[in-house]
Amino acid sequence: MAKRNAFYAQSGGVTAVINASAAGVIETARARRAEIGRVLAGRNGIIGALTEDLIDTSKESARDIAALKHTPSGAFGSCRYKLKGLDESRAQYERLIDVFRAHDIGYFFYNGGNDSADTCLKVSQMADRLGYPLVAVHVPKTVDNDLAVTDNCPGFGSVAKYVATSMREAAFDVASMAATSTKVFVLEVMGRHAGWITAAVGMAEDAATPIPLVLLFPEIPFDEARFTREVDVRVKRFGYCCIGVSEGLQNAAGKLMAEAGSKDAFGHAQLGGVGPLIANLVRERLRYKYHWAVADYLQRAARHLASKTDLDQSYAVGKAAVELALKGHNAVMTAIVRTSDKPYRWKIGIAPLADVANKEKMLPRDYITADGFGITSKARAYLAPLIKGEAPPPYRDGLPQYVRLKNVAVPKRLATSFDIGK
Amino acid sequence: MAKRNAFYAQSGGVTAVINASAAGVIETARARRAEIGRVLAGRNGIIGALTEDLIDTSKESARDIAALKHTPSGAFGSCRYKLKGLDESRAQYERLIDVFRAHDIGYFFYNGGNDSADTCLKVSQMADRLGYPLVAVHVPKTVDNDLAVTDNCPGFGSVAKYVATSMREAAFDVASMAATSTKVFVLEVMGRHAGWITAAVGMAEDAATPIPLVLLFPEIPFDEARFTREVDVRVKRFGYCCIGVSEGLQNAAGKLMAEAGSKDAFGHAQLGGVGPLIANLVRERLRYKYHWAVADYLQRAARHLASKTDLDQSYAVGKAAVELALKGHNAVMTAIVRTSDKPYRWKIGIAPLADVANKEKMLPRDYITADGFGITSKARAYLAPLIKGEAPPPYRDGLPQYVRLKNVAVPKRLATSFDIGK
Repeated sequence: MAKRNAFYAQSGGVTAVINASAAGVIETARARRAEIGRVLAGRNGIIGALTEDLIDTSKESARDIAALKHTPSGAFGSCRYKLKGLDESRAQYERLIDVFRAHDIGYFFYNGGNDSADTCLKVSQMADRLGYPLVAVHVPKTVDNDLAVTDNCPGFGSVAKYVATSMREAAFDVASMAATSTKVFVLEVMGRHAGWITAAVGMAEDAATPIPLVLLFPEIPFDEARFTREVDVRVKRFGYCCIGVSEGLQNAAGKLMAEAGSKDAFGHAQLGGVGPLIANLVRERLRYKYHWAVADYLQRAARHLASKTDLDQSYAVGKAAVELALKGHNAVMTAIVRTSDKPYRWKIGIAPLADVANKEKMLPRDYITADGFGITSKARAYLAPLIKGEAPPPYRDGLPQYVRLKNVAVPKRLATSFDIGK
Repeated sequence: MAKRNAFYAQSGGVTAVINASAAGVIETARARRAEIGRVLAGRNGIIGALTEDLIDTSKESARDIAALKHTPSGAFGSCRYKLKGLDESRAQYERLIDVFRAHDIGYFFYNGGNDSADTCLKVSQMADRLGYPLVAVHVPKTVDNDLAVTDNCPGFGSVAKYVATSMREAAFDVASMAATSTKVFVLEVMGRHAGWITAAVGMAEDAATPIPLVLLFPEIPFDEARFTREVDVRVKRFGYCCIGVSEGLQNAAGKLMAEAGSKDAFGHAQLGGVGPLIANLVRERLRYKYHWAVADYLQRAARHLASKTDLDQSYAVGKAAVELALKGHNAVMTAIVRTSDKPYRWKIGIAPLADVANKEKMLPRDYITADGFGITSKARAYLAPLIKGEAPPPYRDGLPQYVRLKNVAVPKRLATSFDIGK
């Protein structure tokens, strides 16, 4: 059997550990070089495939590929670029197959979230239609933790660890200042539709470290009167209150509290700014001195505080993708299957892409307390293992040492160029 | 000679390592128990002394006191409460001496910044006037790094490490998204008057890790046209640009940009928001997609990422304060003296409080590049050793384990109470 090459691309928002998945794919492919050719990566994600801008990962040293495991961000570039339906965007899918054919790509590894799972499935279907032999495997990644079938999503555990740690640290700070200064602290976190990251803020406190917390989930419509009452009760009782608020917090009418106006390439509203909004509300209604923080990219890029569980799983889903592909599993996603809570055990499973594509796994209502402002023990049992373990990067001169790859381009073989549009 | 007790209090904004100074004071006093009595701490800083709300640190286990070295925030509570001049606030100073006398306090250790150095000096002067024997030693602390005489301030190195690391991580993130998404990232950092923390953001990049950075210092009046041009040049050349902006950025008229800024959805002036302001400006003028983060308390509470240099020095200034006090040094501050840059060496020095009180050490102009948007090699040489070394806290179940002390109150001995006012 002739060895065929693999294509790997990163899609959507990057994470602290998506490069660990890349390392899993590349190192596994290298280990099985008898069966699989080079791994070509898309420069800036799927756009690299459309424009035939491919990176030859075989030019990278084993050491640099290993260093991907401790380097945040997308080493080959990612993109926000969504392919539409097969008929609507037929030219794009055909172009992908043309590029794959030109570079003898027999394996398509797409590392992303909901949208890219859908793209991966469609590429597989188009290859089928065109009679082009291709094995397409989706490698899960999203800090939002909203992919179906998989128990959790690579990238989420590290964000969860970051927001829980940050809130715990800030809570200690506020507690010591509250007598004469700041009494309310607001931390805005990511999670556009699902409150997984907001729930993770709740892990900041536990039996040994109680913290007066109020969480504002995107799943629970914001009720100003109830919210300010909850905050007031905590300040009066504990002297201070910490608030974790999702960027996707909505009002009763289902409108985003922080509608920024601008939209991203997928047509999603670009968020950011509900943190200061909530803080100002506290000042206006309760007259408490407040501070607020918006972690934004810091939370998803914080490789220095990555979860060891998350790192291990991110590598494993990449590694397993290659193994499954070599076994001929097509149109599937590598998934994380939780086999035990205590002790936490997990294994890699296989999810048909049709079960994953375009679905969104919301935070179950019973993970949120009845009052809507906290997390239940069920949520804690789910979240606890995901933030466990530390995996610090190497430091030099006081700073984490992250690798930048050479990213050598593969010579183009097609005479045609392709306009990806705007 | 009769053993006399010590009073210790934390003042102003807390840090990731101020408790290490507390541990330095308490552990050293315990080691020299033949010469010094108990360490009584002020609950919520100097307010605890005024209201005779003292904490008996002798009730805390050796293990818990040691745990202060890895616990951020102010373990006894801090406060923002400034004593005025000796004549203006005479009643307050007299009350302090009354409380000290009632508890046989012969040593006053005050852990804070500029204001508290001044208070420490005045308390010492008042004790003199009243003929009350007291040795007053100031223990330096401020993330702003703006205390005179000392080469650097405990607390600053850890914030510097945090902002440099965070910007480096975010820059990697933005670099991988810039082709189709975010091109400009803004990180707002602390430092109201002096640009030390802003300068530290510049450490995110080095020869091995170039990053297109623009820094906005409080020392350099904001020039919108020049700024947007700098950003535009970098985006056009590198594909993206990262901006570190001081919360204290001022316009040409010397007015804080954050106060000249926008209003929120409720129509209130948005406070502490120069980060989003700058980000919006980038969008308005350059039409680039942006993201912004405001680290706020996260930066000064981030014990998980503390600098080992900073931690060691924070402990040392506390330890030395006790040693100096026992030698009879009065109205002084323990200072950090840099004896060598390469290799970095430092020792503890003695600074007369009169040389420290109410002075502000600004970032030298030659630490900022001529164009006003970056840092010079001189700044790098100064900053490099301060962020060096890691000192992670212990983790349990994926989160840093921070100690909360019992903070047992010392029974009151005075019949009078004291109104600290509002």
